[in-house]
Amino acid sequence: MRIDLFFTPQDVDEMTMRERTAVVIDVLRASSSITTALANGAREVIPAATVEGAVKIAANLSADIVLLAGERNAKIIPGFQLGNSPLEYTEEKVRGKVIVFSSTNGARALATARMARELAVCSFLNIAAVRQFLAERPRDFTIICSGTNGGFSLEDAVCAGMLIDAVVTADGGGVQLSDGALAARTLYTSLGKKPDHVLRLSEHGRLLIDLGFNDDLAYCASVNSVPVLPLFIDNVLKLRRDAERTTTGALGAPN
Amino acid sequence: MRIDLFFTPQDVDEMTMRERTAVVIDVLRASSSITTALANGAREVIPAATVEGAVKIAANLSADIVLLAGERNAKIIPGFQLGNSPLEYTEEKVRGKVIVFSSTNGARALATARMARELAVCSFLNIAAVRQFLAERPRDFTIICSGTNGGFSLEDAVCAGMLIDAVVTADGGGVQLSDGALAARTLYTSLGKKPDHVLRLSEHGRLLIDLGFNDDLAYCASVNSVPVLPLFIDNVLKLRRDAERTTTGALGAPN
Repeated sequence: MRIDLFFTPQDVDEMTMRERTAVVIDVLRASSSITTALANGAREVIPAATVEGAVKIAANLSADIVLLAGERNAKIIPGFQLGNSPLEYTEEKVRGKVIVFSSTNGARALATARMARELAVCSFLNIAAVRQFLAERPRDFTIICSGTNGGFSLEDAVCAGMLIDAVVTADGGGVQLSDGALAARTLYTSLGKKPDHVLRLSEHGRLLIDLGFNDDLAYCASVNSVPVLPLFIDNVLKLRRDAERTTTGALGAPN
Repeated sequence: MRIDLFFTPQDVDEMTMRERTAVVIDVLRASSSITTALANGAREVIPAATVEGAVKIAANLSADIVLLAGERNAKIIPGFQLGNSPLEYTEEKVRGKVIVFSSTNGARALATARMARELAVCSFLNIAAVRQFLAERPRDFTIICSGTNGGFSLEDAVCAGMLIDAVVTADGGGVQLSDGALAARTLYTSLGKKPDHVLRLSEHGRLLIDLGFNDDLAYCASVNSVPVLPLFIDNVLKLRRDAERTTTGALGAPN
């Protein structure tokens, strides 16, 4: 088995994603918010690359079930109901809703991976669920870190490294790592044993602290606190159990 | 002072490079070959992004002084006089020559940084010379790793980390690191104390071993063995002393 990793979406050659299993990571905060929303009962999350696209998608949905969500420069998009703080995605607000979600980096990473055979969303909150998903299909996979504004993000790299370390440890050898995957694992073993420390060290984490999102960092650092698996199927994110209920074929047995 | 770092050329927003001091790293092997060529007496090295561009540039130069050099997929370009092995760039072959050089990754990284105020080429061979150059101008700088085929390269990251570690250690605090710069420094302190080990571990290093370039790895890993400074000025690479002799203004005093 081989693990590939890209530290930014623009490093990905989208065509090479065809037939791959992919994992998208945006710790601060799209992965964490999407995972929380679905765990709290949102029916589905529809990622949109642009604000215009999000508004257009929402206009085609029933107004009583749709919520517009997202951020630009870490702040809520004016006129939208939710920002990108996972703490906003309470059960009270999101149960039964369809969330149209536009974020700067996470939506871009999801778009890059849209040709993948299957695509899971990962953060510190659900890393064991992603690990389990990958264990069921022992084939090559690719991790795409969302990064920040086109650049490398420490928190995404360390989260990826934690996932890779778990896969390699469970496999007991024989896993081939790309340079990026090896680097991410090294960053995790060197820096990442305390995710809250990594988030506070990272540039985007420090920006969020400056903007008053201190609690978001503590929340996004809590490993396996939201043990669900968001999957991207037919351009929509759903929890695995819901996806399996509504989809035939796309989630076949491991081969 | 702040250090920014990009692990691949495509992560760079070229406009942000204006007025920056930049360092381009391509350990395997463009930085090492260019540094060796200039140390062995080549008059200048002209980087070309494409084979066609290289041939066109060479056609406009006197045939008795020009050498066509470069690689595609780590192998010499058919019809060219030199490949991308630094061991080919002997004094006997290169003294007094103008080398038109086209490599897959290194030339792209140099092109990305062409708007920089000043641009140095770095490898393990000349890391102290680059460190000295940066110490003379205590201002923000940006490191661009060339990567491999658009992806992250372990050897470039570790070389960058060694340079960053030297700058931070000499400065004694007060240096601000981007996430990428912090990651590179961490990779150096975790993996990089023995560059030859890193080169053998890296994907591109292993490819070069498979292709029979074993000796290139040992050569490219020898820290400070070629203590010169290639600078990119007016689209041409020259040794610093030659650049200072022929250029007015571009290499002013530190500010």
